[in-house]
Amino acid sequence: MSASDFDDAIAILGGTGDQGLGLAFRFAQAGRPVVIGSRKLDRAVAAQQEVSEAVPAADVVGLENPAATRRARIVILSVPFEHTAGTVKSIRDELQPGQILVSMGVPLAASIGGAAAHTIGVWQGSCAELVASLVPDRVAVVSAFQNVSAHRLRSLGEPVECDVVVSGEKSAREPVMALCGLVPGLRAVDGGPLANARIVESITALLIGMNIRYRVADGIGVRFTGLPDGDR
Amino acid sequence: MSASDFDDAIAILGGTGDQGLGLAFRFAQAGRPVVIGSRKLDRAVAAQQEVSEAVPAADVVGLENPAATRRARIVILSVPFEHTAGTVKSIRDELQPGQILVSMGVPLAASIGGAAAHTIGVWQGSCAELVASLVPDRVAVVSAFQNVSAHRLRSLGEPVECDVVVSGEKSAREPVMALCGLVPGLRAVDGGPLANARIVESITALLIGMNIRYRVADGIGVRFTGLPDGDR
Repeated sequence: MSASDFDDAIAILGGTGDQGLGLAFRFAQAGRPVVIGSRKLDRAVAAQQEVSEAVPAADVVGLENPAATRRARIVILSVPFEHTAGTVKSIRDELQPGQILVSMGVPLAASIGGAAAHTIGVWQGSCAELVASLVPDRVAVVSAFQNVSAHRLRSLGEPVECDVVVSGEKSAREPVMALCGLVPGLRAVDGGPLANARIVESITALLIGMNIRYRVADGIGVRFTGLPDGDR
Repeated sequence: MSASDFDDAIAILGGTGDQGLGLAFRFAQAGRPVVIGSRKLDRAVAAQQEVSEAVPAADVVGLENPAATRRARIVILSVPFEHTAGTVKSIRDELQPGQILVSMGVPLAASIGGAAAHTIGVWQGSCAELVASLVPDRVAVVSAFQNVSAHRLRSLGEPVECDVVVSGEKSAREPVMALCGLVPGLRAVDGGPLANARIVESITALLIGMNIRYRVADGIGVRFTGLPDGDR
């Protein structure tokens, strides 16, 4: 594998789940090499096949999480909140300085048997900060993609229509913001420091409650108005 | 004062502040009687004059907070967070069963000398729930308007372009949602139970941080995509 493969590829751990697989569809459709990670190789390979069926030209491979982590500079963590710490610990020894780990988890109360429209408190402040507390030095953690509907990601013919608030240190935030440009309808918004993930993660719970109240199966998204680059 | 005056009027306590005065402009422009409340009568009267200058046909009066509270079924609380409890206590004896108190406060860290882009923890969970803990029985508390830019409210020729998440018990939420229809560009979104104010209030801090990072003096707003009534 060449250095440019490593830089081009996007690894998605938990890429077998709805939202992670949706991102895999979109990044593959944009022509980027996609590495799907799972705890179980057979599930990763099944997801690889799903991506290949949806996007015939896809450059996609399914691997176990540690092997997937070695394959891309940007590694997206798309596992249920209750598997976050365990997954990070399982890949900790693979992470190299300069890699960027993207947290898209949300501490929904569903993770402890509660409601999906509620959150639980996390000692570090947010799922993203929990992840940051577990990675080696010089591995950056960035928070993004929490509020993007899995259903809309997987509807490949349609734009997703959602802003992605990207939080974390600047040098790591920018490459993740650039990823949003690969997906029609996604727009990256500079979310400042990682601690703002506390707010962005809670918005997911609000959207889930709205999806229930308004019976929106496709998933409600969020846009910010008045940003300098457009008038949405 | 007739019962219909009481039902038509909208009282805004702290209506001398930027955001409260902006709402007063808009409700007066929509033809609704507006009662501006302040701790000090002279400030309330000065705000009344500002509204009359901006909206010559305005039906507006400035009163001290307790007197203002007696004049309208819907009373909007638009005071800095650190004055929330004191203001509610000062009007507690005036509140009658069937009145609706709208909380638009946000527990910004600025209230204790910290940053406007951070929040502080509130024992009850949110400013709105703090308010609810202080009102008499059968007075409903509804959370709304936190994320609406004062600057945009006061630019009377332009739509505000913001969704308003309205949380609280259903019978009280609906009249407050109806108020949003009075202001061009505002759209009410059903925010479910009052406890969701925890999330909505924190969004204000996120928007303040974005205003700083993007240097947006007018104020960034929020829209939800995929709602049944439109395709924004």
